[in-house]
Amino acid sequence: MKLAGYGEDRLVRELTQRLAVGRDVLVGAGDDCAVIGRKTDAQWQLLKTDCIIEGVHFLKNADPKKVGWKALGRALSDIAAMGGKGWHGLVTLGIPADMEVAWLKGFYKGLSNIAEKFGVSIVGGETARSPGAFFCSIALTGTVDSKHCVTRSGGKAGDRLYVTGRLGGSIRGKHLTFTPRIEEAQWLTKKFPVHAMMDLSDGLGSDLPRLAQASGAGFMVYEEKIPLTKGCTTQNALADGEDYELLFAIVPQDAKRLEAAWKKRFPKLPLTHIGELCRNFETENLKSHGYDHFA
Amino acid sequence: MKLAGYGEDRLVRELTQRLAVGRDVLVGAGDDCAVIGRKTDAQWQLLKTDCIIEGVHFLKNADPKKVGWKALGRALSDIAAMGGKGWHGLVTLGIPADMEVAWLKGFYKGLSNIAEKFGVSIVGGETARSPGAFFCSIALTGTVDSKHCVTRSGGKAGDRLYVTGRLGGSIRGKHLTFTPRIEEAQWLTKKFPVHAMMDLSDGLGSDLPRLAQASGAGFMVYEEKIPLTKGCTTQNALADGEDYELLFAIVPQDAKRLEAAWKKRFPKLPLTHIGELCRNFETENLKSHGYDHFA
Repeated sequence: MKLAGYGEDRLVRELTQRLAVGRDVLVGAGDDCAVIGRKTDAQWQLLKTDCIIEGVHFLKNADPKKVGWKALGRALSDIAAMGGKGWHGLVTLGIPADMEVAWLKGFYKGLSNIAEKFGVSIVGGETARSPGAFFCSIALTGTVDSKHCVTRSGGKAGDRLYVTGRLGGSIRGKHLTFTPRIEEAQWLTKKFPVHAMMDLSDGLGSDLPRLAQASGAGFMVYEEKIPLTKGCTTQNALADGEDYELLFAIVPQDAKRLEAAWKKRFPKLPLTHIGELCRNFETENLKSHGYDHFA
Repeated sequence: MKLAGYGEDRLVRELTQRLAVGRDVLVGAGDDCAVIGRKTDAQWQLLKTDCIIEGVHFLKNADPKKVGWKALGRALSDIAAMGGKGWHGLVTLGIPADMEVAWLKGFYKGLSNIAEKFGVSIVGGETARSPGAFFCSIALTGTVDSKHCVTRSGGKAGDRLYVTGRLGGSIRGKHLTFTPRIEEAQWLTKKFPVHAMMDLSDGLGSDLPRLAQASGAGFMVYEEKIPLTKGCTTQNALADGEDYELLFAIVPQDAKRLEAAWKKRFPKLPLTHIGELCRNFETENLKSHGYDHFA
């Protein structure tokens, strides 16, 4: 059977479900990052890998500095989603033989810029010749205080669902220039007991069902409350993807205090209550808006 | 300027030389692995990334189980070269939409087999659609006792150069079925003060000059002593690449004891004294045998 039509989530689940992992693997495949450590450690290590491919995640005529920024930014967004911060990065490049050296230098400049901004050391990598398109795979380690580490799976029926920023229309530029929400997530997880969190990379319509499923909960969304990027429809917000915003679940008792504190701390970044986790899968239909890389 | 003709080593040097790294980065880009830790720590962390691409590192009709074995085996070979052992792996896949699901399952089976054999936990990964060929990038963490960690750069003029196994002709099959020399390197670095070590991935003709240059030394090789795979020429041994054997430098005073102990411990794996590090670049001509991914 060909992969197209098989379903990305199903494939990943089947490929990874029988992997043997050591006892120090607190969270393995299936969350934003892997979490490594002993339960009693004060800090845990986070591990994440991600890649961008020419023609899929950026176009040939894109500014190479922005592409370099995006390559590491995507992995940082996943580190943020666990409440962590980035530490060491490795860069694997698949390079077509006719690629311009100047383009690669621009790419590395963008990569260095975001690494410096977020305190990441680029400590190595690998180059190989690509017979097809350029690609870059980033591996990133991070750290998280164990008491502030948040996964996708801790959500409870009754929790309120929040998203940062505005959703949809990322293809118009934000997908190359977004800011990973490291600072916001660090603040949030230190101040509030966040039950579950993830970053929005495939669109709310795919990602929210994943968070709910990992938490063993259903969900409902007030579609009219979804914060839209200017000029975007709800459909854009659900299915465009690449928002790199945070989606998280928190008890309703904390909602008022959270909203007031957020406004004070991050006055320029909207925080929006978009729905709730519940007992049943009442809005399963959101799933049909999801983005499947192979569909 | 196009990359072809620019030189892989030059490109990598230029891309990585200006990267800012933290004080915990003991060895950064340019060695087999990055080394992370404080000088006084008993153990250090190793970080490595590597990739394989269809049509470059394996052919479409190759056994997927073997391809999966190779994908992780290459990174383990680099971990071995530092005297370390593998710990946690992350898998990034770029998958063409028309790929067979059965092939991917075979690939993961091979990956699981080698992970289990060497005690590596596969803790996560990422899948993306590849518009071109299939590729797999592996990120691997490892650990090494700080007092047994070996880099490429500690070689001294007068050291003897040794290689494990036989070189050349890997393309006939060994490139898919090799055993990373984790066990051998662990034994070696615990028993003997190894000055410098690396794994042979691009061929002795490329890799030895790298080790010598990193050590600030010249080298000479007794070409007639190079251990050849059956049916191979010296040229094959220098330039075929993908041997995944160890190359290391050790003081001549330890040579006799090493050779005797090795024979006893690893009776089936040849260990061969192929040359020496020296003060001048007397055999610079070996460089012309090297494998450049972009040439």
